[in-house]
Amino acid sequence: MSGWLEELDRLAEGRAKAGLTRRLRPRPAAGSAVDLAGNDYLGLSAHPRVIEASARALSSYGLGATGSRLVRGSTEAHAELEAALAEWLGAPAALVFSSGYLANLAAVRGLAALCDVIVSDAYNHASLIDGCKMAGTKTVVAPHNSPASVASILDTHGGRAVVVTESVFSVDGDLAPLAELHEVTAARGALLLVDDAHALGLLGSEGAGGVAAAGLAGRSDVVVTATLSKSLGGAGGVIAGPAQFVRHLVDTGRTFIYDTALPPGVAAGVHEALRIARAADDRRALLAARASQAVARLGAAGFEVATPAAGVLSVLAPGPDAALAWAADCRDRGVAVGCFRPPSTPDGSSRLRLTLNAGVTDLDFARALDVIVECSP
Amino acid sequence: MSGWLEELDRLAEGRAKAGLTRRLRPRPAAGSAVDLAGNDYLGLSAHPRVIEASARALSSYGLGATGSRLVRGSTEAHAELEAALAEWLGAPAALVFSSGYLANLAAVRGLAALCDVIVSDAYNHASLIDGCKMAGTKTVVAPHNSPASVASILDTHGGRAVVVTESVFSVDGDLAPLAELHEVTAARGALLLVDDAHALGLLGSEGAGGVAAAGLAGRSDVVVTATLSKSLGGAGGVIAGPAQFVRHLVDTGRTFIYDTALPPGVAAGVHEALRIARAADDRRALLAARASQAVARLGAAGFEVATPAAGVLSVLAPGPDAALAWAADCRDRGVAVGCFRPPSTPDGSSRLRLTLNAGVTDLDFARALDVIVECSP
Repeated sequence: MSGWLEELDRLAEGRAKAGLTRRLRPRPAAGSAVDLAGNDYLGLSAHPRVIEASARALSSYGLGATGSRLVRGSTEAHAELEAALAEWLGAPAALVFSSGYLANLAAVRGLAALCDVIVSDAYNHASLIDGCKMAGTKTVVAPHNSPASVASILDTHGGRAVVVTESVFSVDGDLAPLAELHEVTAARGALLLVDDAHALGLLGSEGAGGVAAAGLAGRSDVVVTATLSKSLGGAGGVIAGPAQFVRHLVDTGRTFIYDTALPPGVAAGVHEALRIARAADDRRALLAARASQAVARLGAAGFEVATPAAGVLSVLAPGPDAALAWAADCRDRGVAVGCFRPPSTPDGSSRLRLTLNAGVTDLDFARALDVIVECSP
Repeated sequence: MSGWLEELDRLAEGRAKAGLTRRLRPRPAAGSAVDLAGNDYLGLSAHPRVIEASARALSSYGLGATGSRLVRGSTEAHAELEAALAEWLGAPAALVFSSGYLANLAAVRGLAALCDVIVSDAYNHASLIDGCKMAGTKTVVAPHNSPASVASILDTHGGRAVVVTESVFSVDGDLAPLAELHEVTAARGALLLVDDAHALGLLGSEGAGGVAAAGLAGRSDVVVTATLSKSLGGAGGVIAGPAQFVRHLVDTGRTFIYDTALPPGVAAGVHEALRIARAADDRRALLAARASQAVARLGAAGFEVATPAAGVLSVLAPGPDAALAWAADCRDRGVAVGCFRPPSTPDGSSRLRLTLNAGVTDLDFARALDVIVECSP
């Protein structure tokens, strides 16, 4: 196609002018930066027991799963992880995917195929939005965290519906009113799909997640998805729910059937992280204390910061260029923070996204907060 | 939603009656079965150098990448792998994804956004089809492996177009006429997107893939995708092409931006597998000999089997139940083979799918062919 590279150049120039160019910054193994950017909330990605369990499975199974789950890729490491996830989440069954993105695509599409309408929270993750798009089912976007609006949409649209939300939202870290949403869906015979990625390991008894914390674990009208790459420190995704739905996905879920399985070594490492996470009330208490500390420190410096529901805090910046410079200055001083600009932000405003990490020392965390304040625009 | 579980039960009964129920069969680490089912063509997933490189990165980086590529997930292991992939494939740039499925979604969507029409081969993989669906761009399905039909579609539809195909198709193992397709696209100013997953490591000089073998490596109007989970024995996917397109995906590719990065240990293991694969002419020669051996043995037994272009052979079965029983009998006798039934088969017929694997001994391979013949319906 003549001129397509020139067109890509023009598009890149447009993004550059708007301050929306993104750049990959590979980090070394021995990272000296204090990590307030990643999602390793419980600090388990480098836990010796996790590394050891993963290395053992790597040795015995080899690097890759060598095939899709149904052809060659299912190993005992996958089956054991799925049983452990189902038990932890209080769900009848669980199915592991190679990524949370693919799990969300399968969950939305699988449920939407049974429904006439999808009601999707305005701040939902890209993978959930793409799932709606792929499903082809009529989708109504509901105002963020508004059970009343969801109720009104359901009352207007009739038919069978699935309501799609996150528990802890990925950019601002706020919590969805899950119990109220479920009251709304249950009263109207709708299903509720919750992406629990940023709450798993952090909320609920034994860290079983936001759905469990809301008393909704194991409900037959609730389906949960999550990543295995955040508090569990690994990679992959999971769908947990009624056994009938999991069976349905094994038979029909395209992103499950036609995808190479998660590497067995990753599954085994995540399984060990799960065992540690269930017992990690000390780490959860530390994160709660850190959350208060961050809100107090940033608040004293004049920033409006909401108390995070789990491990994500958002600090608004004046604009995309300012956010970028702020994050760069922090990085130069040894503190890694997330820099979120459109289209990654639901409201179109730019900000720093800070994430709590139990693997960071008290001293480093306090210093990191100082750096963030000192570098502010 | 009252009754949804009952509806799932009814749907499952329908699939059972049609012989289309799928079952997960977790395999143990010390698998005794001869593997003619997976995609570990070069036998590298368990290569000591691959395991060692992966284990080293696992120890130094931890299990997961702890974030998306742009926020926290990019490590030197990713950057080094991308440079090595670009060099191997003869492309200006390469971008690694956490799965081939997500790479295909990004490639199709990214190219389609610049085009008025997508021309998609009738036998394309689910991930490519989903990419077309997600893109929302007008999509015309072309008859399988027919450059003349593609030409006619392009002539009819005008506007800017991208033609999407695999190099070696995943079910039947046949090769697309890439050079002819490129003549058609180049003459009409269209782009060509090739999923090289089943040819990478197998075809072309140093195993650089089907696109390289067709003399199309590095063309500015060609984009290549591949998985890192087949001949490279790991997990993940890659898009290789013009640097402008890779930069475009870094800035705008949803399945790149909003997805946790491939684990660094997997990236490092794949990188070592790549080094071995480039020098593995002996393994490629072995696979070619095995292909001839299989065609001869199965042909002598009365099966029509086409000589595979790379490592995939397809043997038709009378129906889904017969295919299932055939594969089960082979499994009972220690031979793992793929059983492909609708909707996983492009033509709606059921078959065994056999894959060649350089890690299988000569003795085991000969015995496996005997078992397949002896178990045939």
